[in-house]
Amino acid sequence: MEFAERFAQVEHRGRLCVGLDPHPDELPEHIACDRQGVGRFLGAVIEATAAYAVAYKPNCAFFESLGPWGWEILESLRGVIPTDKLLILDGKRGDVGHTAARYAHAAFQRVGADAVTLSPFLGADSVEPFVKYPDKGAFLLCHTSNPGAAEWQGLNVDGEPLFLRVARWAPTVSKHANVGLVAGATRPEALQRIREAAPTLPLLIPGVGAQQGDLKAAVRAAAGGPFLINASRSIVGASRGKDFADAAADAAAHLHSAIAEAEGARVGT
Amino acid sequence: MEFAERFAQVEHRGRLCVGLDPHPDELPEHIACDRQGVGRFLGAVIEATAAYAVAYKPNCAFFESLGPWGWEILESLRGVIPTDKLLILDGKRGDVGHTAARYAHAAFQRVGADAVTLSPFLGADSVEPFVKYPDKGAFLLCHTSNPGAAEWQGLNVDGEPLFLRVARWAPTVSKHANVGLVAGATRPEALQRIREAAPTLPLLIPGVGAQQGDLKAAVRAAAGGPFLINASRSIVGASRGKDFADAAADAAAHLHSAIAEAEGARVGT
Repeated sequence: MEFAERFAQVEHRGRLCVGLDPHPDELPEHIACDRQGVGRFLGAVIEATAAYAVAYKPNCAFFESLGPWGWEILESLRGVIPTDKLLILDGKRGDVGHTAARYAHAAFQRVGADAVTLSPFLGADSVEPFVKYPDKGAFLLCHTSNPGAAEWQGLNVDGEPLFLRVARWAPTVSKHANVGLVAGATRPEALQRIREAAPTLPLLIPGVGAQQGDLKAAVRAAAGGPFLINASRSIVGASRGKDFADAAADAAAHLHSAIAEAEGARVGT
Repeated sequence: MEFAERFAQVEHRGRLCVGLDPHPDELPEHIACDRQGVGRFLGAVIEATAAYAVAYKPNCAFFESLGPWGWEILESLRGVIPTDKLLILDGKRGDVGHTAARYAHAAFQRVGADAVTLSPFLGADSVEPFVKYPDKGAFLLCHTSNPGAAEWQGLNVDGEPLFLRVARWAPTVSKHANVGLVAGATRPEALQRIREAAPTLPLLIPGVGAQQGDLKAAVRAAAGGPFLINASRSIVGASRGKDFADAAADAAAHLHSAIAEAEGARVGT
Protein backbone atom coordinates (compact mmCIF):
# COMPACT_ATOMS: atom_id res chain seq x y z
CA MET A 1 0.00 0.00 0.00
CA GLU A 2 1.31 3.49 -0.81
CA PHE A 3 2.30 5.57 2.19
CA ALA A 4 -0.23 8.30 1.42
CA GLU A 5 -3.11 5.81 1.51
CA ARG A 6 -1.78 4.14 4.65
CA PHE A 7 -1.39 7.50 6.37
CA ALA A 8 -4.94 8.47 5.43
CA GLN A 9 -6.28 5.20 6.89
CA VAL A 10 -4.29 5.63 10.10
CA GLU A 11 -5.20 9.28 10.53
CA HIS A 12 -8.87 8.42 10.00
CA ARG A 13 -8.74 6.35 13.21
CA GLY A 14 -7.07 8.95 15.40
CA ARG A 15 -4.36 11.54 15.89
CA LEU A 16 -2.19 10.24 18.70
CA CYS A 17 1.44 9.26 18.12
CA VAL A 18 3.31 7.94 21.18
CA GLY A 19 7.02 8.71 21.31
CA LEU A 20 9.13 5.81 22.57
CA ASP A 21 12.17 7.38 24.23
CA PRO A 22 13.61 5.03 26.86
CA HIS A 23 15.91 7.19 28.99
CA PRO A 24 17.93 5.10 31.48
CA ASP A 25 17.30 7.62 34.29
CA GLU A 26 13.56 7.79 33.63
CA LEU A 27 12.64 4.10 33.53
CA PRO A 28 10.30 2.73 36.19
CA GLU A 29 12.40 2.01 39.23
CA HIS A 30 11.80 -1.75 39.22
CA ILE A 31 12.85 -2.12 35.56
CA ALA A 32 16.45 -3.08 34.82
CA CYS A 33 18.18 -1.03 32.15
CA ASP A 34 19.10 -3.98 29.96
CA ARG A 35 17.89 -5.74 26.80
CA GLN A 36 15.12 -7.61 28.61
CA GLY A 37 14.04 -4.81 30.92
CA VAL A 38 13.77 -2.06 28.31
CA GLY A 39 12.26 -4.44 25.76
CA ARG A 40 9.54 -5.51 28.19
CA PHE A 41 8.97 -1.94 29.35
CA LEU A 42 8.34 -0.69 25.82
CA GLY A 43 6.24 -3.75 25.02
CA ALA A 44 4.03 -3.02 28.03
CA VAL A 45 3.73 0.68 27.11
CA ILE A 46 2.76 -0.20 23.54
CA GLU A 47 0.17 -2.75 24.67
CA ALA A 48 -1.28 -0.34 27.23
CA THR A 49 -1.59 2.57 24.80
CA ALA A 50 -2.63 0.71 21.62
CA ALA A 51 -6.31 1.51 22.18
CA TYR A 52 -5.53 5.23 21.83
CA ALA A 53 -2.42 5.51 19.64
CA VAL A 54 -2.39 5.24 15.85
CA ALA A 55 1.39 5.62 15.55
CA TYR A 56 4.57 5.08 17.56
CA LYS A 57 7.71 7.16 17.20
CA PRO A 58 10.93 5.73 18.65
CA ASN A 59 13.75 8.28 18.68
CA CYS A 60 17.07 6.69 17.62
CA ALA A 61 19.11 8.63 20.19
CA PHE A 62 17.60 6.77 23.14
CA PHE A 63 18.35 3.39 21.59
CA GLU A 64 21.86 3.98 20.28
CA SER A 65 22.88 5.46 23.63
CA LEU A 66 22.04 2.08 25.22
CA GLY A 67 24.58 0.33 22.98
CA PRO A 68 24.16 -2.52 20.48
CA TRP A 69 21.31 -4.07 22.46
CA GLY A 70 19.44 -0.78 22.14
CA TRP A 71 19.51 -1.29 18.38
CA GLU A 72 18.32 -4.87 18.91
CA ILE A 73 15.27 -3.48 20.68
CA LEU A 74 14.73 -0.88 17.95
CA GLU A 75 14.79 -3.62 15.33
CA SER A 76 12.31 -5.68 17.38
CA LEU A 77 9.69 -2.94 17.74
CA ARG A 78 7.95 -3.56 14.40
CA GLY A 79 7.10 -7.06 15.69
CA VAL A 80 5.57 -5.58 18.85
CA ILE A 81 3.70 -2.56 17.45
CA PRO A 82 0.34 -3.65 15.98
CA THR A 83 0.52 -3.77 12.18
CA ASP A 84 -2.24 -1.19 11.75
CA LYS A 85 -0.15 1.44 13.59
CA LEU A 86 2.56 3.51 11.93
CA LEU A 87 6.16 3.17 13.06
CA ILE A 88 7.87 6.53 12.57
CA LEU A 89 11.62 6.35 13.16
CA ASP A 90 12.73 9.71 14.54
CA GLY A 91 16.39 10.16 13.64
CA LYS A 92 16.37 13.58 11.95
CA ARG A 93 18.98 12.20 9.55
CA GLY A 94 20.49 14.23 6.76
CA ASP A 95 23.57 13.20 4.81
CA VAL A 96 25.00 13.03 1.28
CA GLY A 97 23.11 10.70 -1.08
CA HIS A 98 25.44 7.68 -0.93
CA THR A 99 25.29 7.77 2.89
CA ALA A 100 21.60 8.70 3.11
CA ALA A 101 20.86 5.47 1.23
CA ARG A 102 22.43 3.53 4.12
CA TYR A 103 20.29 5.41 6.66
CA ALA A 104 17.25 4.55 4.54
CA HIS A 105 18.29 0.90 4.56
CA ALA A 106 18.62 0.94 8.36
CA ALA A 107 15.24 2.64 8.83
CA PHE A 108 13.13 0.81 6.28
CA GLN A 109 14.76 -2.61 5.82
CA ARG A 110 16.21 -3.24 9.29
CA VAL A 111 13.85 -1.37 11.64
CA GLY A 112 10.86 -1.80 9.32
CA ALA A 113 9.78 1.81 9.83
CA ASP A 114 6.89 3.20 7.79
CA ALA A 115 8.34 6.69 7.88
CA VAL A 116 11.33 8.69 9.11
CA THR A 117 12.08 12.22 10.20
CA LEU A 118 14.71 14.03 8.12
CA SER A 119 16.60 17.31 8.22
CA PRO A 120 16.24 19.27 4.97
CA PHE A 121 19.60 21.00 5.52
CA LEU A 122 21.54 19.04 2.87
CA GLY A 123 18.99 19.52 0.11
CA ALA A 124 17.00 17.33 -2.26
CA ASP A 125 19.67 14.71 -2.94
CA SER A 126 19.80 13.92 0.80
CA VAL A 127 16.03 13.31 0.88
CA GLU A 128 15.68 11.36 -2.36
CA PRO A 129 17.04 8.00 -1.04
CA PHE A 130 14.15 7.94 1.47
CA VAL A 131 11.22 9.19 -0.60
CA LYS A 132 11.84 6.95 -3.60
CA TYR A 133 9.94 4.15 -1.84
CA PRO A 134 6.19 4.56 -2.53
CA ASP A 135 5.24 2.71 0.66
CA LYS A 136 7.51 4.80 2.93
CA GLY A 137 7.19 8.38 4.12
CA ALA A 138 9.44 11.17 5.33
CA PHE A 139 8.63 14.06 7.67
CA LEU A 140 11.00 16.98 7.07
CA LEU A 141 11.99 19.20 9.96
CA CYS A 142 10.17 22.45 9.34
CA HIS A 143 9.72 24.20 12.70
CA THR A 144 10.96 22.10 15.61
CA SER A 145 9.67 22.25 19.19
CA ASN A 146 12.87 23.29 20.98
CA PRO A 147 13.60 26.78 22.38
CA GLY A 148 16.30 27.57 19.79
CA ALA A 149 14.28 26.42 16.77
CA ALA A 150 13.72 29.89 15.35
CA GLU A 151 17.43 30.69 15.37
CA TRP A 152 17.86 29.09 11.92
CA GLN A 153 14.36 27.98 10.99
CA GLY A 154 13.01 31.50 11.49
CA LEU A 155 15.69 33.25 9.45
CA ASN A 156 14.40 35.81 7.02
CA VAL A 157 14.95 34.43 3.50
CA ASP A 158 13.89 36.87 0.83
CA GLY A 159 11.07 38.16 2.99
CA GLU A 160 9.77 34.91 4.47
CA PRO A 161 10.95 32.73 7.34
CA LEU A 162 13.06 29.74 6.32
CA PHE A 163 10.53 27.28 7.80
CA LEU A 164 7.86 28.49 5.37
CA ARG A 165 10.22 27.88 2.51
CA VAL A 166 10.73 24.31 3.78
CA ALA A 167 6.93 23.93 3.85
CA ARG A 168 6.64 25.07 0.24
CA TRP A 169 9.69 23.04 -0.85
CA ALA A 170 8.52 19.74 0.65
CA PRO A 171 6.04 18.86 -2.14
CA THR A 172 8.78 19.41 -4.73
CA VAL A 173 10.89 16.58 -3.22
CA SER A 174 7.90 14.30 -2.68
CA LYS A 175 7.92 11.39 -5.12
CA HIS A 176 4.72 9.61 -4.14
CA ALA A 177 2.80 12.15 -2.04
CA ASN A 178 4.91 10.71 0.79
CA VAL A 179 6.50 13.80 2.35
CA GLY A 180 5.21 15.51 5.47
CA LEU A 181 6.52 18.10 7.91
CA VAL A 182 7.55 18.23 11.56
CA ALA A 183 6.00 21.32 13.14
CA GLY A 184 6.10 21.83 16.90
CA ALA A 185 3.07 22.64 19.02
CA THR A 186 5.25 25.05 20.97
CA ARG A 187 4.79 27.72 18.28
CA PRO A 188 1.13 27.57 17.14
CA GLU A 189 1.47 30.77 15.08
CA ALA A 190 4.25 29.11 13.03
CA LEU A 191 2.10 25.96 12.74
CA GLN A 192 -0.75 28.05 11.40
CA ARG A 193 1.45 29.56 8.70
CA ILE A 194 2.87 26.12 7.84
CA ARG A 195 -0.67 24.75 7.38
CA GLU A 196 -1.55 27.66 5.12
CA ALA A 197 1.60 27.10 3.03
CA ALA A 198 1.10 23.32 2.87
CA PRO A 199 -2.64 22.69 3.18
CA THR A 200 -2.55 18.98 2.26
CA LEU A 201 0.75 17.80 3.78
CA PRO A 202 0.73 15.46 6.79
CA LEU A 203 2.07 17.25 9.86
CA LEU A 204 3.82 15.47 12.72
CA ILE A 205 3.37 17.71 15.74
CA PRO A 206 5.59 17.16 18.79
CA GLY A 207 5.83 19.32 21.86
CA VAL A 208 2.44 19.01 23.58
CA GLY A 209 3.72 16.92 26.49
CA ALA A 210 6.83 17.72 28.50
CA GLN A 211 7.60 20.66 26.21
CA GLN A 212 4.26 22.25 27.15
CA GLY A 213 3.01 23.26 23.74
CA ASP A 214 -0.58 24.48 23.54
CA LEU A 215 -2.68 21.52 22.35
CA LYS A 216 -5.83 23.44 21.52
CA ALA A 217 -3.97 26.10 19.60
CA ALA A 218 -1.96 23.42 17.78
CA VAL A 219 -5.07 21.47 16.75
CA ARG A 220 -6.77 24.67 15.62
CA ALA A 221 -3.70 25.61 13.57
CA ALA A 222 -3.19 22.17 11.98
CA ALA A 223 -6.84 21.47 11.24
CA GLY A 224 -8.00 21.34 7.66
CA GLY A 225 -5.23 18.94 6.70
CA PRO A 226 -3.86 15.65 7.99
CA PHE A 227 -1.83 15.61 11.20
CA LEU A 228 -0.64 13.53 14.14
CA ILE A 229 0.03 14.82 17.63
CA ASN A 230 3.05 13.28 19.35
CA ALA A 231 3.75 13.00 23.07
CA SER A 232 6.71 11.08 24.45
CA ARG A 233 7.84 11.67 28.03
CA SER A 234 4.36 12.56 29.30
CA ILE A 235 3.13 9.07 28.32
CA VAL A 236 6.14 6.74 28.46
CA GLY A 237 7.32 8.41 31.66
CA ALA A 238 3.88 9.00 33.21
CA SER A 239 4.86 6.93 36.26
CA ARG A 240 8.11 5.45 37.48
CA GLY A 241 6.24 3.03 39.70
CA LYS A 242 4.87 -0.45 39.03
CA ASP A 243 1.74 1.19 37.64
CA PHE A 244 3.72 2.65 34.70
CA ALA A 245 1.63 0.85 32.05
CA ASP A 246 -1.68 1.95 33.56
CA ALA A 247 -0.32 5.47 33.94
CA ALA A 248 0.81 5.47 30.28
CA ALA A 249 -2.66 4.25 29.24
CA ASP A 250 -4.32 6.97 31.32
CA ALA A 251 -2.04 9.66 29.87
CA ALA A 252 -2.68 8.38 26.33
CA ALA A 253 -6.44 8.22 26.93
CA HIS A 254 -6.41 11.73 28.35
CA LEU A 255 -4.48 13.16 25.42
CA HIS A 256 -6.64 11.22 22.94
CA SER A 257 -9.75 12.79 24.48
CA ALA A 258 -8.21 16.23 24.66
CA ILE A 259 -7.35 16.07 20.94
CA ALA A 260 -10.88 14.91 20.09
CA GLU A 261 -12.31 17.68 22.24
CA ALA A 262 -10.09 20.29 20.58
CA GLU A 263 -11.15 18.98 17.18
CA GLY A 264 -14.79 18.95 18.24
CA ALA A 265 -14.51 22.50 19.47
CA ARG A 266 -13.03 23.40 16.11
CA VAL A 267 -15.84 21.69 14.20
CA GLY A 268 -18.38 23.40 16.41
CA THR A 269 -17.12 26.90 15.81
CA MET B 1 43.53 17.43 27.59
CA GLU B 2 41.23 20.06 26.11
CA PHE B 3 39.99 19.36 22.61
CA ALA B 4 41.56 22.52 21.18
CA GLU B 5 45.01 21.51 22.42
CA ARG B 6 44.56 17.94 21.22
CA PHE B 7 43.41 19.12 17.80
CA ALA B 8 46.44 21.41 17.52
CA GLN B 9 48.78 18.51 18.36
CA VAL B 10 47.10 16.21 15.85
CA GLU B 11 46.99 18.79 13.11
CA HIS B 12 50.68 19.55 13.65
CA ARG B 13 51.47 15.98 12.55
CA GLY B 14 49.37 15.97 9.39
CA ARG B 15 46.11 16.75 7.66
CA LEU B 16 44.71 13.41 6.59
CA CYS B 17 41.46 12.05 8.02
CA VAL B 18 40.37 8.64 6.74
CA GLY B 19 36.63 8.04 6.52
CA LEU B 20 35.56 4.57 7.64
CA ASP B 21 32.40 3.78 5.69
CA PRO B 22 31.96 0.02 5.35
CA HIS B 23 29.37 -0.45 2.57
CA PRO B 24 28.30 -4.11 2.22
CA ASP B 25 28.50 -3.92 -1.59
CA GLU B 26 31.94 -2.32 -1.59
CA LEU B 27 33.84 -4.64 0.76
CA PRO B 28 36.75 -6.67 -0.62
CA GLU B 29 35.27 -9.73 -2.28
CA HIS B 30 36.89 -12.24 0.08
CA ILE B 31 35.60 -10.45 3.23
CA ALA B 32 32.36 -11.70 4.77
CA CYS B 33 29.85 -8.99 5.66
CA ASP B 34 29.57 -9.96 9.32
CA ARG B 35 30.89 -8.86 12.72
CA GLN B 36 34.26 -10.57 12.26
CA GLY B 37 34.73 -9.74 8.59
CA VAL B 38 33.94 -6.04 8.78
CA GLY B 39 35.79 -5.68 12.09
CA ARG B 40 38.94 -7.24 10.63
CA PHE B 41 38.60 -5.26 7.41
CA LEU B 42 38.48 -1.94 9.25
CA GLY B 43 41.27 -3.02 11.59
CA ALA B 44 43.48 -3.80 8.60
CA VAL B 45 42.64 -0.48 6.90
CA ILE B 46 43.42 1.45 10.08
CA GLU B 47 46.73 -0.37 10.58
CA ALA B 48 47.71 0.15 6.94
CA THR B 49 46.94 3.85 6.89
CA ALA B 50 48.10 4.85 10.39
CA ALA B 51 51.44 6.10 9.09
CA TYR B 52 49.62 8.76 7.04
CA ALA B 53 46.35 9.49 8.86
CA VAL B 54 46.00 11.70 11.93
CA ALA B 55 42.26 11.10 12.29
CA TYR B 56 39.58 8.54 11.44
CA LYS B 57 35.97 9.38 10.71
CA PRO B 58 33.46 6.51 10.87
CA ASN B 59 30.04 7.52 9.51
CA CYS B 60 27.22 6.13 11.67
CA ALA B 61 25.01 5.30 8.67
CA PHE B 62 27.28 2.51 7.46
CA PHE B 63 27.34 0.88 10.90
CA GLU B 64 23.69 1.16 11.89
CA SER B 65 22.65 -0.21 8.49
CA LEU B 66 24.56 -3.42 9.37
CA GLY B 67 22.40 -3.94 12.45
CA PRO B 68 23.34 -4.27 16.14
CA TRP B 69 26.70 -5.87 15.32
CA GLY B 70 27.53 -2.77 13.26
CA TRP B 71 27.23 -0.75 16.45
CA GLU B 72 29.40 -3.32 18.22
CA ILE B 73 32.11 -2.61 15.66
CA LEU B 74 31.62 1.15 16.01
CA GLU B 75 32.06 0.85 19.77
CA SER B 76 35.21 -1.23 19.28
CA LEU B 77 36.99 1.24 16.98
CA ARG B 78 38.46 3.43 19.73
CA GLY B 79 40.39 0.35 20.89
CA VAL B 80 41.77 -0.18 17.37
CA ILE B 81 42.54 3.39 16.33
CA PRO B 82 45.91 4.51 17.80
CA THR B 83 45.36 6.80 20.78
CA ASP B 84 47.23 9.69 19.18
CA LYS B 85 44.69 9.81 16.31
CA LEU B 86 41.34 11.59 16.53
CA LEU B 87 38.14 9.59 16.27
CA ILE B 88 35.52 11.84 14.66
CA LEU B 89 32.04 10.28 14.72
CA ASP B 90 30.19 11.47 11.64
CA GLY B 91 26.47 11.35 12.42
CA LYS B 92 25.36 14.88 11.51
CA ARG B 93 23.00 14.70 14.49
CA GLY B 94 20.70 17.50 15.49
CA ASP B 95 17.84 17.15 17.96
CA VAL B 96 16.16 18.89 20.88
CA GLY B 97 18.38 19.26 23.98
CA HIS B 98 17.01 16.35 26.04
CA THR B 99 17.54 14.02 23.06
CA ALA B 100 20.81 15.57 21.92
CA ALA B 101 22.23 14.68 25.33
CA ARG B 102 21.58 10.98 24.53
CA TYR B 103 23.36 11.32 21.18
CA ALA B 104 26.28 12.92 23.02
CA HIS B 105 26.30 9.99 25.45
CA ALA B 106 26.39 7.51 22.56
CA ALA B 107 29.18 9.37 20.76
CA PHE B 108 31.44 10.27 23.67
CA GLN B 109 30.79 7.67 26.36
CA ARG B 110 29.96 4.61 24.28
CA VAL B 111 31.93 5.10 21.05
CA GLY B 112 34.66 7.11 22.77
CA ALA B 113 34.73 9.67 19.97
CA ASP B 114 36.87 12.78 20.33
CA ALA B 115 34.52 14.81 18.17
CA VAL B 116 31.24 14.61 16.27
CA THR B 117 29.65 16.25 13.26
CA LEU B 118 26.40 18.12 13.95
CA SER B 119 23.70 19.87 11.98
CA PRO B 120 23.15 23.45 13.16
CA PHE B 121 19.51 23.40 11.99
CA LEU B 122 17.93 23.15 15.47
CA GLY B 123 19.95 25.98 16.98
CA ALA B 124 22.23 26.49 19.99
CA ASP B 125 20.32 24.30 22.46
CA SER B 126 20.82 21.29 20.16
CA VAL B 127 24.59 21.87 20.07
CA GLU B 128 25.13 22.64 23.77
CA PRO B 129 24.92 19.02 25.04
CA PHE B 130 27.95 18.17 22.87
CA VAL B 131 30.19 21.21 23.34
CA LYS B 132 29.91 21.36 27.11
CA TYR B 133 32.69 18.77 27.38
CA PRO B 134 36.08 20.56 27.26
CA ASP B 135 37.84 17.47 25.89
CA LYS B 136 35.34 16.87 23.08
CA GLY B 137 34.76 18.75 19.84
CA ALA B 138 31.94 19.35 17.37
CA PHE B 139 32.14 20.15 13.65
CA LEU B 140 29.00 21.96 12.49
CA LEU B 141 27.74 21.41 8.97
CA CYS B 142 28.50 24.64 7.16
CA HIS B 143 28.78 23.86 3.44
CA THR B 144 28.50 20.15 2.69
CA SER B 145 30.07 18.35 -0.25
CA ASN B 146 26.91 17.05 -1.95
CA PRO B 147 25.39 18.42 -5.18
CA GLY B 148 22.33 19.89 -3.42
CA ALA B 149 24.25 21.57 -0.59
CA ALA B 150 23.67 25.10 -1.82
CA GLU B 151 19.89 24.62 -1.94
CA TRP B 152 19.58 25.57 1.75
CA GLN B 153 23.13 26.35 2.82
CA GLY B 154 23.48 28.92 0.04
CA LEU B 155 20.22 30.73 0.74
CA ASN B 156 20.46 34.49 0.83
CA VAL B 157 19.96 35.61 4.43
CA ASP B 158 20.01 39.36 4.79
CA GLY B 159 22.56 39.69 2.03
CA GLU B 160 24.87 36.80 2.84
CA PRO B 161 24.65 33.06 2.18
CA LEU B 162 23.38 30.99 5.10
CA PHE B 163 26.64 28.98 5.28
CA LEU B 164 28.59 32.15 6.08
CA ARG B 165 26.22 32.88 8.90
CA VAL B 166 26.87 29.38 10.26
CA ALA B 167 30.61 30.12 10.07
CA ARG B 168 30.18 33.34 12.05
CA TRP B 169 27.74 31.73 14.49
CA ALA B 170 29.93 28.74 15.35
CA PRO B 171 32.26 30.58 17.78
CA THR B 172 29.22 31.86 19.69
CA VAL B 173 28.15 28.28 20.57
CA SER B 174 31.70 27.15 21.30
CA LYS B 175 32.23 26.61 25.02
CA HIS B 176 35.90 25.61 25.09
CA ALA B 177 37.23 26.62 21.66
CA ASN B 178 35.92 23.20 20.63
CA VAL B 179 33.70 23.96 17.64
CA GLY B 180 34.78 23.55 14.03
CA LEU B 181 33.06 23.48 10.66
CA VAL B 182 32.41 20.95 7.91
CA ALA B 183 33.19 22.59 4.57
CA GLY B 184 33.36 20.51 1.40
CA ALA B 185 36.24 20.60 -1.06
CA THR B 186 33.69 20.46 -3.86
CA ARG B 187 33.09 24.22 -3.56
CA PRO B 188 36.51 25.87 -2.98
CA GLU B 189 35.07 29.36 -3.43
CA ALA B 190 32.68 28.71 -0.52
CA LEU B 191 35.57 27.26 1.49
CA GLN B 192 37.57 30.42 0.89
CA ARG B 193 34.74 32.59 2.20
CA ILE B 194 34.28 30.29 5.21
CA ARG B 195 37.96 30.59 6.06
CA GLU B 196 37.76 34.37 5.83
CA ALA B 197 34.72 34.42 8.11
CA ALA B 198 36.23 31.95 10.60
CA PRO B 199 40.00 32.37 10.39
CA THR B 200 40.86 30.27 13.45
CA LEU B 201 38.21 27.53 13.40
CA PRO B 202 39.21 23.94 12.61
CA LEU B 203 37.75 22.87 9.27
CA LEU B 204 36.87 19.29 8.41
CA ILE B 205 36.99 19.09 4.62
CA PRO B 206 35.36 16.12 2.89
CA GLY B 207 34.83 15.63 -0.82
CA VAL B 208 38.34 15.27 -2.28
CA GLY B 209 38.03 11.54 -3.02
CA ALA B 210 35.05 9.95 -4.73
CA GLN B 211 33.25 13.28 -4.79
CA GLN B 212 36.08 14.78 -6.87
CA GLY B 213 36.64 18.04 -5.05
CA ASP B 214 39.70 20.04 -6.06
CA LEU B 215 42.39 19.28 -3.48
CA LYS B 216 44.78 22.07 -4.40
CA ALA B 217 42.06 24.69 -4.44
CA ALA B 218 40.69 23.37 -1.13
CA VAL B 219 44.08 23.50 0.58
CA ARG B 220 44.69 26.99 -0.79
CA ALA B 221 41.29 28.11 0.50
CA ALA B 222 41.60 26.52 3.96
CA ALA B 223 45.20 27.53 4.60
CA GLY B 224 45.97 30.05 7.30
CA GLY B 225 43.90 28.17 9.84
CA PRO B 226 43.65 24.60 11.10
CA PHE B 227 42.07 21.95 8.89
CA LEU B 228 41.82 18.25 8.11
CA ILE B 229 41.19 16.75 4.68
CA ASN B 230 38.93 13.69 4.68
CA ALA B 231 38.74 10.92 2.10
CA SER B 232 36.59 7.84 2.59
CA ARG B 233 35.73 5.65 -0.40
CA SER B 234 38.93 6.46 -2.30
CA ILE B 235 40.98 4.93 0.56
CA VAL B 236 38.78 2.32 2.24
CA GLY B 237 37.51 1.15 -1.14
CA ALA B 238 40.80 1.53 -3.05
CA SER B 239 40.76 -2.17 -3.95
CA ARG B 240 38.20 -4.94 -3.59
CA GLY B 241 40.92 -7.55 -3.94
CA LYS B 242 43.11 -9.23 -1.33
CA ASP B 243 45.49 -6.27 -1.64
CA PHE B 244 42.88 -3.91 -0.13
CA ALA B 245 45.10 -2.91 2.82
CA ASP B 246 48.11 -2.17 0.62
CA ALA B 247 45.86 -0.27 -1.79
CA ALA B 248 44.41 1.75 1.12
CA ALA B 249 47.95 2.51 2.34
CA ASP B 250 48.99 3.60 -1.15
CA ALA B 251 45.91 5.81 -1.54
CA ALA B 252 46.49 7.35 1.90
CA ALA B 253 50.20 7.90 1.16
CA HIS B 254 49.33 9.49 -2.16
CA LEU B 255 46.78 11.85 -0.64
CA HIS B 256 49.12 12.65 2.27
CA SER B 257 51.81 13.67 -0.23
CA ALA B 258 49.39 15.58 -2.41
CA ILE B 259 48.21 17.60 0.61
CA ALA B 260 51.83 18.31 1.63
CA GLU B 261 52.62 19.32 -1.93
CA ALA B 262 49.62 21.61 -2.10
CA GLU B 263 50.64 23.15 1.21
CA GLY B 264 54.24 23.49 0.04
CA ALA B 265 53.09 25.16 -3.12
CA ARG B 266 51.06 27.51 -0.98
CA VAL B 267 54.00 28.28 1.29
CA GLY B 268 56.17 28.84 -1.78
CA THR B 269 53.89 31.34 -3.39
